[in-house]
Amino acid sequence: MRSAQKLIAPLLAEAGCLATGAGARGYVAPARWAARAAEEVTAVENAHRAPSGVMEVPSRLLMGPGPANAHPRILAAQSLPLLGHMHPPFLKIMDDISEGLRYTLQTKSKYTLMVSGTGHAGMEAAIANLVEPGDKVVVGNAGIWGERVGILSRRYQADVVEIKVPAGQTFSYETLKATLLEHKPAVLFLCQGESSTGTHQSLAGLGDLCRQTGTLLLVDTVCSLGGVPLFADAWGVDCIYSGSQKCLSGPPGAAPFFLSERAMEKLQKRKTPPATYNLDMNLIGDYWGWFGKRSYHHTGPVSTFYAMREALALVAEEGLESMWARHQELHNRLWDGLRGMGLKPFVEKDEDRLITVNTIKVPEGVDWAALVKHAMDTYSLEIAGGLGPTAGKVWRVGIMGYNAKPQNVELVLTAFKDGLKRQGKL
Amino acid sequence: MRSAQKLIAPLLAEAGCLATGAGARGYVAPARWAARAAEEVTAVENAHRAPSGVMEVPSRLLMGPGPANAHPRILAAQSLPLLGHMHPPFLKIMDDISEGLRYTLQTKSKYTLMVSGTGHAGMEAAIANLVEPGDKVVVGNAGIWGERVGILSRRYQADVVEIKVPAGQTFSYETLKATLLEHKPAVLFLCQGESSTGTHQSLAGLGDLCRQTGTLLLVDTVCSLGGVPLFADAWGVDCIYSGSQKCLSGPPGAAPFFLSERAMEKLQKRKTPPATYNLDMNLIGDYWGWFGKRSYHHTGPVSTFYAMREALALVAEEGLESMWARHQELHNRLWDGLRGMGLKPFVEKDEDRLITVNTIKVPEGVDWAALVKHAMDTYSLEIAGGLGPTAGKVWRVGIMGYNAKPQNVELVLTAFKDGLKRQGKL
Repeated sequence: MRSAQKLIAPLLAEAGCLATGAGARGYVAPARWAARAAEEVTAVENAHRAPSGVMEVPSRLLMGPGPANAHPRILAAQSLPLLGHMHPPFLKIMDDISEGLRYTLQTKSKYTLMVSGTGHAGMEAAIANLVEPGDKVVVGNAGIWGERVGILSRRYQADVVEIKVPAGQTFSYETLKATLLEHKPAVLFLCQGESSTGTHQSLAGLGDLCRQTGTLLLVDTVCSLGGVPLFADAWGVDCIYSGSQKCLSGPPGAAPFFLSERAMEKLQKRKTPPATYNLDMNLIGDYWGWFGKRSYHHTGPVSTFYAMREALALVAEEGLESMWARHQELHNRLWDGLRGMGLKPFVEKDEDRLITVNTIKVPEGVDWAALVKHAMDTYSLEIAGGLGPTAGKVWRVGIMGYNAKPQNVELVLTAFKDGLKRQGKL
Repeated sequence: MRSAQKLIAPLLAEAGCLATGAGARGYVAPARWAARAAEEVTAVENAHRAPSGVMEVPSRLLMGPGPANAHPRILAAQSLPLLGHMHPPFLKIMDDISEGLRYTLQTKSKYTLMVSGTGHAGMEAAIANLVEPGDKVVVGNAGIWGERVGILSRRYQADVVEIKVPAGQTFSYETLKATLLEHKPAVLFLCQGESSTGTHQSLAGLGDLCRQTGTLLLVDTVCSLGGVPLFADAWGVDCIYSGSQKCLSGPPGAAPFFLSERAMEKLQKRKTPPATYNLDMNLIGDYWGWFGKRSYHHTGPVSTFYAMREALALVAEEGLESMWARHQELHNRLWDGLRGMGLKPFVEKDEDRLITVNTIKVPEGVDWAALVKHAMDTYSLEIAGGLGPTAGKVWRVGIMGYNAKPQNVELVLTAFKDGLKRQGKL
């Protein structure tokens, strides 16, 4: 124990806490702590007492791979007063979220909820719950998300079969069929929208195949949900996780989550509970009313629930068809402009291209980072560089949710025009 | 695959997505998805399209065990526009949080951060990182938090030695000393403020003892941090997790987290990484700049970071000594009033009593739930019942953070007076 520096007793005494005498090591314990003679109530050290000045939050247009700017109605929802995490009006908000997710994911399953964590927590929840030690998991690695699911699955003691495509490509139905038939894995993982490479993985026909091989189909929709079609039930998907901060126009920190009846059966037949207690879906589901009652598991992040509720209300108001069409239209507009400048997509095939996160080839001799810096310095506009397999090779432009508007795409095009001109490339 | 019900192609065509013909199963794939002939773009099902009406958030005074009402400045901070999770001004906000936590926890350790999750995620992060499979963990179980840490530690394959006290009591130094010397565990867990029973565990002298036995001292401060003294360095604590929604006056969803140099050494010497990737502190620390650089691990929940930054600014402005004194003063005021009505504390010994979550014995013949209902119906005031070992035996009244104000305590006293009178008990 370090020696005390200053007495705080007077302060406490002043507040009605009677100081009862000096302790053996030079501190004075107030009445409340007198019986804990050895528990030093030393002087408070102010070295790290941070200046409380105003938080600096510059206004930025976030047209990278996310987070995108949140819808003002969603930000406003976060400043509503708190409710208790088990109060009936709060449980109603949770029910609204479950229901809104059913629409957004196009499922009738009762097993929808929002994981109290980022998309990354959603990913871990999926693997931790669907995988029992020793289970075979086929991981489609088309970029950093597949890679990460591979790492994560190994930590949860899965027998991982990783299949890979070169950056910018997706898995063909034939490859996936052959792999499924060969391995008959417990889980097949695919990322619908791979934000590191800008690819859109087709899920065509996989639900049927997975039913033949006893496989659960797990799909990452973090940067695609709300931006491109997804039909959880019609396509036979068994588990989906997503993120709040992309096409759903919310702040990051919440992960939409879904399980099919088949996935739920597997969960309930597990021989061992998942290593994680925090993300155990049988326990979290119990808080969300999946099994009828409502049990305390964790304290729901109240403001974040409000945000998700509002985000899903916005989806319901606009309608999925309009949202998908809006994203498609602006993707077309972006590429009309980019091609006009001689820029080319990193993803070769039309049908592999993701419309929400667009990867643009950096032409020979162009300093990608300088263009990114220029956009930020001049327009407070975020355009991102590559990530993982695309680092240094591409720019990434997100067209997502609230940000999917013509004026934003036009500003991106202006920034590219300027940026290329400054480098004498246009 | 289920059959399609309606064509969405016209909608998409309208938006510039050319429909290229009917597929084999009655759907029309627009150009974008034409190559994925088998990927049904069926009609959108509107059955679960939730009504988007205004969210109902009644105003409530939350004087239960938490969440407490958030400070308006913190709620307002959550509606600030988003920044990218790797943008320099955002990294500055993260640094402010780390620094503010150093002050709040009274440590010089560089290993402070906010876990992107609830207090419960903080608990899991602590165990998942500090425990290697087979490690001996002594868990002090004085209520539901100790019980949960026991369960959690077993999931992470710890060799758990659980010690228990009857509800309403705490562990004596002598018991803990004997247990440490006997087991020389890798980790000793204690909960400083046990919200289910209303006890305050002294940490006196344990830091020294733990150093003798090679034990890491892990402390839960979810409902005590900011309300009662804590000196992480001076008391030799090695790991702390807390919550944002109690004495720190924030919304739930963030977990202050701290590691000592000793704890960090253990982390870096682990033979196996923790099962959780989402809460792997070596990776999260890398995002927070613990090791110099900054690597992407997950997308920080931007609004929640703003809230924590503001919460810690409020702590720095008021000062720890004032906060502790304020909580103590209002605890005294509450009990002056309650004793005047003949009510008694559930926790027998003065020195074991927690000032932030107060447990009040339900007298013989009183319907505790009726009193709770009356407070809510009449005053929109939350007073809670017991939890776990105290269910049905106590009321729980929180005096925490922004809610620790005389007017709130007076309203609680009024509700008790009314409630007892209605039952003819006063």
